[in-house]
Amino acid sequence: MIMMNRRAVLAGSALALAAETFPDLGHGKVAPASQQVAGLYRYRLGDFELTAINDGVWHLPIDGAFVRNAAFPQVQQAMADAFMPAADNLPLPFTALLVNTGSKLVLIDTGTGGQIAPTAGLLVPNLIAAGIAPETIDTIVITHFHPDHINGIKTKDDALVFPNAEILVPEPEWAFWMDDARLGTASEVIKGYFLNARRIFKNIAKDVRRYPPGRELVPGIEPVLAPGHTPGHQAIAIASVGQSMLVLSDTSTHPALFVRYPEWQVAFDMDGAMAVETRRKLLDRVAADRMLVAGYHFPFPACGHIARAGTGYELHPVQWSPQL
Amino acid sequence: MIMMNRRAVLAGSALALAAETFPDLGHGKVAPASQQVAGLYRYRLGDFELTAINDGVWHLPIDGAFVRNAAFPQVQQAMADAFMPAADNLPLPFTALLVNTGSKLVLIDTGTGGQIAPTAGLLVPNLIAAGIAPETIDTIVITHFHPDHINGIKTKDDALVFPNAEILVPEPEWAFWMDDARLGTASEVIKGYFLNARRIFKNIAKDVRRYPPGRELVPGIEPVLAPGHTPGHQAIAIASVGQSMLVLSDTSTHPALFVRYPEWQVAFDMDGAMAVETRRKLLDRVAADRMLVAGYHFPFPACGHIARAGTGYELHPVQWSPQL
Repeated sequence: MIMMNRRAVLAGSALALAAETFPDLGHGKVAPASQQVAGLYRYRLGDFELTAINDGVWHLPIDGAFVRNAAFPQVQQAMADAFMPAADNLPLPFTALLVNTGSKLVLIDTGTGGQIAPTAGLLVPNLIAAGIAPETIDTIVITHFHPDHINGIKTKDDALVFPNAEILVPEPEWAFWMDDARLGTASEVIKGYFLNARRIFKNIAKDVRRYPPGRELVPGIEPVLAPGHTPGHQAIAIASVGQSMLVLSDTSTHPALFVRYPEWQVAFDMDGAMAVETRRKLLDRVAADRMLVAGYHFPFPACGHIARAGTGYELHPVQWSPQL
Repeated sequence: MIMMNRRAVLAGSALALAAETFPDLGHGKVAPASQQVAGLYRYRLGDFELTAINDGVWHLPIDGAFVRNAAFPQVQQAMADAFMPAADNLPLPFTALLVNTGSKLVLIDTGTGGQIAPTAGLLVPNLIAAGIAPETIDTIVITHFHPDHINGIKTKDDALVFPNAEILVPEPEWAFWMDDARLGTASEVIKGYFLNARRIFKNIAKDVRRYPPGRELVPGIEPVLAPGHTPGHQAIAIASVGQSMLVLSDTSTHPALFVRYPEWQVAFDMDGAMAVETRRKLLDRVAADRMLVAGYHFPFPACGHIARAGTGYELHPVQWSPQL
């Protein structure tokens, strides 16, 4: 009784023919919007109001080098299991998190600044669509210095995007990326990250506050050292009025691969073995505590819960709620 | 290293105290939005532009009677597995689907009309937020006559919400619900559904077109008889330019229960055994074909893919895309 795939193809052909006959098909009484709605999702945590703000997606061509310690067919099977449309292209989303604590507007990571993929760079327009002017951001918390997390601090032309925000960066991350000796011995790709971090921070260094892990940044927001992805990579714990969550940042990149198979080392994990150890430890904890988590590369709205599943875990995305 | 639950509680207490000291906490430089963004998600299917339009959610108190043929602790375990916040309350979302075929604006089901739950009735405001005036809807396709699907046709005061739309309803559904003999022998709950259907359709009956299953309604949109949930319940196949999907409507209500455990009979399934047979058949097919599906009670944006999992299935929600 269901329309067969074959029938659908035939119906499709008929429509394609019609489209040729009537070239204005697609511009009926109400023209298609031809663009997505703003990537925004709000939720409450205690007294805090959080907004997940999508910066877009990177359609990342991948090959056998993308996961260091898994055969490419296994990676492709994991992508097929997650119904990804292509076997050699990973749609990797970017979603930053805005926390309105009631007295401060805190933005955790800043997106790509439109400097990484043509399908990303939407953070500022989405922020404005949420009614938030970039000038009103009080605090920026950076989790680590990879370009897709820090480039949104500045435009391509080095102008500050959030001119009134205090910028807080992890002390161990700063120490690593500002070390000239390490820059001198880095591979070409990593060298690019070193130079990019210096472009972002060089002329604002005196205004950047370096934070140690484990000490509260603003009331209710506390960094948690989660090394491996980068040497000073931080998760961020948020708590308000008895409710708490953990912002995993890049503890796992795409969950269909690295939550499901936590032992896999993505090419972006600078110390793969340490990243796996940190990932296991944090995923174990949030699964045991049934704690709400956010992930920078999780599918939008990029928050949910982690459950143990076989030898790995699975992400249960939060059920979209029409009310806060 | 992670903030412990106990610590979170302590941090929460400190914040609660602060809130008492500073009663304007929560109204900082930028006031919280205190409401969700519009529940809209657009996607393409061939030449068609589809918009998932959330009507809201029903926080439905449930007990052992909600699933006829499963012990309540099993149902509660399934809800816990899906990280639902309460063990005796099911957040059941409503999401209608708008299809812009290029020449017609077709709305599949109409939401609750604000007549079922205080947290639902958002379809028209969300439609307007999407740039679509209710007057521009050309065609309404009704899948079955349960109130949460048909009440949006009219306001509480019996005014037509979509004044220019042709209304298409399943012929077998009409035959059942307009049968006075069946009304006479119905239980109180079902009698309410009979009377509600008559309130919606009585004075517009001459303008309502009754459609048979299996015949195209508009090019690319075809009903598929899927009986059991109601006698004339329809799924809707959509196809355009070689791409196809199946709108499951209420073939399964909440997927955490009835996709995961397809043999479970929800209290709303009027013929439970037939509903299970239909559900198995359709879920088997869409899983085998890896076909995109939509579900009226699936978590927003209410579309994704179905995979076999153990003795049941699981829903893989579509990955939110910032581009069409």
